[in-house]
Amino acid sequence: MVRFLVLYDKPDDPEAFDRHYRQVHIPLAKKLPGLRRYTVSREAGRVRGGQPYYLVAELDWDDMDALRSAFASPEGQATAADVPTFAGDRVRSMIYELEEV
Amino acid sequence: MVRFLVLYDKPDDPEAFDRHYRQVHIPLAKKLPGLRRYTVSREAGRVRGGQPYYLVAELDWDDMDALRSAFASPEGQATAADVPTFAGDRVRSMIYELEEV
Repeated sequence: MVRFLVLYDKPDDPEAFDRHYRQVHIPLAKKLPGLRRYTVSREAGRVRGGQPYYLVAELDWDDMDALRSAFASPEGQATAADVPTFAGDRVRSMIYELEEV
Repeated sequence: MVRFLVLYDKPDDPEAFDRHYRQVHIPLAKKLPGLRRYTVSREAGRVRGGQPYYLVAELDWDDMDALRSAFASPEGQATAADVPTFAGDRVRSMIYELEEV
């Protein structure tokens, strides 16, 4: 399993961010080919370090090839192009294989 | 399902960090009561924003009560006390409920 982890910092206008995320971004991302699971955080609470991220999104694929195909697809390009429209540069994202320990 | 997300920045001595994480921290964390799943990232690649976190650990419990009980247990206290010994303050962690979208 591979995961695409997206960490959004708190936006200036949380209401507008939430509205766009729900009404536009989720519907775009749910069309990504091969997507196995898509979860978002609800009301993250801090344990250590700075403030918790405002929103944590996690999207899973079977393997890295499937994720890369999804990113390269028209749906992937549309989803990626949407991010700066609501998050600006207040987002940090990465992909990795999941290792069960 | 609730998740405890732990984001470690790159350590000064990755070899010592990895050794401690594998030999000491994972065995401690695996004793946490009620832990349902524990995954770590392998070779995270950057997509947006700064460098990817050096290590992403995700630990899941059935619900917030189960997670809080685990944190309050002797095993939870031992696991928490171990973190600064290998990560210093280069760690950011948070807890949240997972919402499937």
